[in-house]
Amino acid sequence: MSEMMKNPVIEVHDMIAGRWSPRAFDANKPIEQEKILSVLEAARWAPSCFGDEPWRFVVSNRFEDESAWENMLALLVPGNQAWAKHAPVLMLACADSVFRANGKANRWAAYDVGQASISLCLQATSLGLISHQMGGFDSEKARETLKIPEQFTPMAAIALGYQGDADVLNDDLKSVELAARKRQPMSENFFAGTWGNGILKGGET
Amino acid sequence: MSEMMKNPVIEVHDMIAGRWSPRAFDANKPIEQEKILSVLEAARWAPSCFGDEPWRFVVSNRFEDESAWENMLALLVPGNQAWAKHAPVLMLACADSVFRANGKANRWAAYDVGQASISLCLQATSLGLISHQMGGFDSEKARETLKIPEQFTPMAAIALGYQGDADVLNDDLKSVELAARKRQPMSENFFAGTWGNGILKGGET
Repeated sequence: MSEMMKNPVIEVHDMIAGRWSPRAFDANKPIEQEKILSVLEAARWAPSCFGDEPWRFVVSNRFEDESAWENMLALLVPGNQAWAKHAPVLMLACADSVFRANGKANRWAAYDVGQASISLCLQATSLGLISHQMGGFDSEKARETLKIPEQFTPMAAIALGYQGDADVLNDDLKSVELAARKRQPMSENFFAGTWGNGILKGGET
Repeated sequence: MSEMMKNPVIEVHDMIAGRWSPRAFDANKPIEQEKILSVLEAARWAPSCFGDEPWRFVVSNRFEDESAWENMLALLVPGNQAWAKHAPVLMLACADSVFRANGKANRWAAYDVGQASISLCLQATSLGLISHQMGGFDSEKARETLKIPEQFTPMAAIALGYQGDADVLNDDLKSVELAARKRQPMSENFFAGTWGNGILKGGET
């Protein structure tokens, strides 16, 4: 793993430090079935409010069912299709708007789907795969194409595969691919005791 | 780690298999400052839509600022206070309702906060800590006590600490603590190609 990907300043586990959102997928390398099931298993064991598991994932594998994969690719905005067309597996993560137990609105649905999706992506990192989540897709078209019931909200598309050469990307995407990752300073978003009281109290990373 | 906690059937990384939501915290064991910063760093490096980082975490440490910690504990519903009172660190994760860049509604805010929170919890697992997220808290009281601006939505409280003895719990909570974890069968929530087409096609785990 190159230094570029390991930008966290404070030490965190490799699985977290090594996860990023590349665009250069190897189009010729399928993902082993046991690895696909392993990343889904990681999502499956995410925690959720009342144990509701409000996530639903639709998974398409170009090497298994090319037409399902093409349907999924067609949902993405053109800017994402430009690179996601190299990803052997494309997924859509959806959120159940109501609790299974009582049919009442679940205000944690999207939150919990996010937990499942990143668990999937972190497990992918641990297996030597890369992943890239996208908000840029057509929700209504997804609903029609994939027959998603009204009760569910499409939240994110996820590309999964093996890292390819950055040269498969056009120049604009290539420069994004090779840029350093960055985040807000910790005290911007993490507070001690009360709102706005930056946790690092001056010493910033 | 006991077998009980390792319920995933398909192999996943220890950090994911070993994470669960215990209630028996060791009230006498503070968390080292570098471990607190490490779990926050893990949250900080979560991915987010447009790189917005819509999460804000308010962190209270009983061994650093007991009154801030007591304020946080008081936000929880009684059923959660019953066990969370043993956790040395209590946090509240909030979601920014709008994008920093343009002030428009961010429909991925809760999703992305969920990604940050579970990253925090997984990093905690890797450091030998336990974590437990809660939806059961008083949002309006949180807003008043912690001075949370209108623009942000409290999403989850998180208890963090070291595992304690299950005997600190009352009998009801103790039986929950010692029960096996469970999830829906994979094909219930994970589909191949289109909605409802269970990915395991018969062979279920």
